[in-house]
Amino acid sequence: MGHSVDEITVFAPATVANLGLGFDILGLAVREPGDTVTARRVEGDEVVISAITGDDGKLPLEASRNTAGIAVIETLKAAGTTAGIEIELHKSMPLGSGLGSSAASAAAAALATNLLLGGPLRKQQLVTPCIEAEAAVAGRHADNVGPALLGGLLLIRSVEPLDIIRLPIPDGLTVVVVTPEYELLTRDARQALPDQVSLGDLVRNTANIAALVSACHSGDLSLMSRCVPDEVVTPRRAALIPGGPQVIAAALEAGALGSSISGSGPSIFALCHSPRCAEEVGGAMVEAFHQAEMQAVSVISPADCPGARPL
Amino acid sequence: MGHSVDEITVFAPATVANLGLGFDILGLAVREPGDTVTARRVEGDEVVISAITGDDGKLPLEASRNTAGIAVIETLKAAGTTAGIEIELHKSMPLGSGLGSSAASAAAAALATNLLLGGPLRKQQLVTPCIEAEAAVAGRHADNVGPALLGGLLLIRSVEPLDIIRLPIPDGLTVVVVTPEYELLTRDARQALPDQVSLGDLVRNTANIAALVSACHSGDLSLMSRCVPDEVVTPRRAALIPGGPQVIAAALEAGALGSSISGSGPSIFALCHSPRCAEEVGGAMVEAFHQAEMQAVSVISPADCPGARPL
Repeated sequence: MGHSVDEITVFAPATVANLGLGFDILGLAVREPGDTVTARRVEGDEVVISAITGDDGKLPLEASRNTAGIAVIETLKAAGTTAGIEIELHKSMPLGSGLGSSAASAAAAALATNLLLGGPLRKQQLVTPCIEAEAAVAGRHADNVGPALLGGLLLIRSVEPLDIIRLPIPDGLTVVVVTPEYELLTRDARQALPDQVSLGDLVRNTANIAALVSACHSGDLSLMSRCVPDEVVTPRRAALIPGGPQVIAAALEAGALGSSISGSGPSIFALCHSPRCAEEVGGAMVEAFHQAEMQAVSVISPADCPGARPL
Repeated sequence: MGHSVDEITVFAPATVANLGLGFDILGLAVREPGDTVTARRVEGDEVVISAITGDDGKLPLEASRNTAGIAVIETLKAAGTTAGIEIELHKSMPLGSGLGSSAASAAAAALATNLLLGGPLRKQQLVTPCIEAEAAVAGRHADNVGPALLGGLLLIRSVEPLDIIRLPIPDGLTVVVVTPEYELLTRDARQALPDQVSLGDLVRNTANIAALVSACHSGDLSLMSRCVPDEVVTPRRAALIPGGPQVIAAALEAGALGSSISGSGPSIFALCHSPRCAEEVGGAMVEAFHQAEMQAVSVISPADCPGARPL
């Protein structure tokens, strides 16, 4: 346990969930964008959100209806205490962009709360409070909140009970994320999913994810390039994004190891063997969005980025 | 290329395919039982099976209808040559027992042929001739022929094109295989499979196989014990085996890390952290078969057994 403080500011990064065929089970932290939460102790034992910036006024200020607020409340509960806490939330990524916006807010709020309390919980123990916060807006998943808190590339083997495995990241592996100016509701993206898949799809996806995990451990990027494609979720969701299939094709054409939808989209990510390759791939992806008359921005990150941390 | 010989005897081991949730994609070589092929050069360019033992007269002697014969023919074709070859096949495992009987015969025959020719092909190049041989009796799969030839624990990412990844095996990992006196036709076992699985099952199986592969690389046996169960294939096939569900339960109760059907059954395997544990687990499994009025034998092997080899 550390010393308690009166005010703290915490950053938590955007995250790429699913990574293609890791639907609901893989998540990766990126360098930017991210959300920032400033939390301070106040009199009494209420949790209050005093301000939100960067959300175009879309998010509720009411703590019990906001992922950041819920994360504070659940973290206090997990620590077995009550406290008066006021937070300011500064968002720097668009909502509904497939970058784990709500997860970043929850992760920053949970870590800020824990640090305000003097650190009674280990970081890993903050995952469950963040899952509760996510559940309020995006379903009971840990593929965004896990890496937003803990960084790196995580395999969520199970949410209930929670079982998270950190995967090694091959040297030089770089991720480029391209976000178009287009809002895709998580709900619509979820509805594009099939209820059932064929046994053949099950075999293909288990084979490919097994190979992807082996490639992470062995650093075999050639193998990684053979196993990122997914035929179950990616094609159905890419079709919902103007230019989506073309952007993925452009990424592969430009040398990406793999490319698919980030989370439920519309952001599209690509994995590259080096930052230099990622520059070219990002340019090609943005250009492909332009061809579909979509404005888009690209962000390049090492694949082994840290999670939530005090600023 | 080595020196050509006039006669050679090759052993190829039984194999545990699927390993629970690795349906159609994982296979593991065991120490015994296995098949032995003696091959010799003869005049002319015909492939002849002169004798088969241990099959109760069930296998065809006609080379083009027998997996061992087809493997010889396909190996000659892959080497771009013709030759007169006579083989004797000695089987030491029951047919239809889920131990990759036809794959062991094919692997032994292919390697014997290659060695008779002076070794023009690498061992890895014998996999495709063996897949052709398997296709004649058991479908186009490599999860038995791969490990029967190459040994160890293999991930078959793809058959077409062939993409095989060797997985590391944690120290001490031991496999026990229990075979009841009961013939389960591969065809019937295939028919027990669903055409479709739910998206939830896809997520669970991809999560578990990803974790299993990670556990192989990291040597984390506790993680391995959490991820061997499979809810798609194992329960449906276990129900076809008298005592099947009880034998799996007995294995876990006795300390196995995981237990499921070997191949399409009726053999049942269990993974254990040590040979000593495997002894206890094997005893409990045989006893559970007895309770279901089935005679059964158990065989214990290290999990990292070699594949086909000259005797």
